[in-house]
Amino acid sequence: MELYSDEYFMKKALEQAEEAYDLGEVPVGAVIVCENRIIARAHNRTEALNDVTAHAEILAITAASDYLGSKYLNGCTLYVTLEPCVMCAGALAWSQIDRIVFGAGDDRRGFCRIGKNELLHPKTKCLYGVMESECSSLLKRFFQEKR
Amino acid sequence: MELYSDEYFMKKALEQAEEAYDLGEVPVGAVIVCENRIIARAHNRTEALNDVTAHAEILAITAASDYLGSKYLNGCTLYVTLEPCVMCAGALAWSQIDRIVFGAGDDRRGFCRIGKNELLHPKTKCLYGVMESECSSLLKRFFQEKR
Repeated sequence: MELYSDEYFMKKALEQAEEAYDLGEVPVGAVIVCENRIIARAHNRTEALNDVTAHAEILAITAASDYLGSKYLNGCTLYVTLEPCVMCAGALAWSQIDRIVFGAGDDRRGFCRIGKNELLHPKTKCLYGVMESECSSLLKRFFQEKR
Repeated sequence: MELYSDEYFMKKALEQAEEAYDLGEVPVGAVIVCENRIIARAHNRTEALNDVTAHAEILAITAASDYLGSKYLNGCTLYVTLEPCVMCAGALAWSQIDRIVFGAGDDRRGFCRIGKNELLHPKTKCLYGVMESECSSLLKRFFQEKR
């Protein structure tokens, strides 16, 4: 695996998702990268915090803004294992982040069913399907065990 | 003003918006009500926290969930002075809140341009225009002074 490739950083997001899995949270993980450095790591914590807003992306945005001392995430890329939901896409729009890379798609809750142009900032680029099978198989395993 | 009417609670949300105004934040305020009791109050804090996710609604949802010990806001109504954005509508969808009441509309950033049915939970009812002129005049005053 190439250093600082999209796969490299998605692997880091996947490690976060695995931490969530071990804690009984829906296994979604995220990292935010600025100039090839990870400036924020987070995983879903909706169960632990009893809070629907505690998605990996929201926690990562808050942490990255805190690190940068700026509410705008210029020059940053978010790597997240699952397609962001509408709430997270809305937050990413406000942040004016440069780039979003996600692994597995989410036909039911993902923002793409509404449309990239409607929800994201015009300058934000989007790439999907990076390590898709690893990201989605962790989610499938989680939901199979829950049944 | 009738006790426990929509106007009564919107007035409380407007008091939160006025606090935001005094702090130099975009003046949006919110309260969440359960069985005629205010269980959460919040105003926009995006500047103070350097965080695009620190909208009044998000902070109020987190506080209300904390109070109830539940991530679902069943039996609750959110009063907010400005039409929620897409991020906040997405958060409200996850919370399965019963009812949303907002004051001023937001043609540019509000969720209604995408559509209630696409963004909110099917059971969530929505009412708008309560104390609209008071809510919007505070926002207009803020942006006029910023220029």
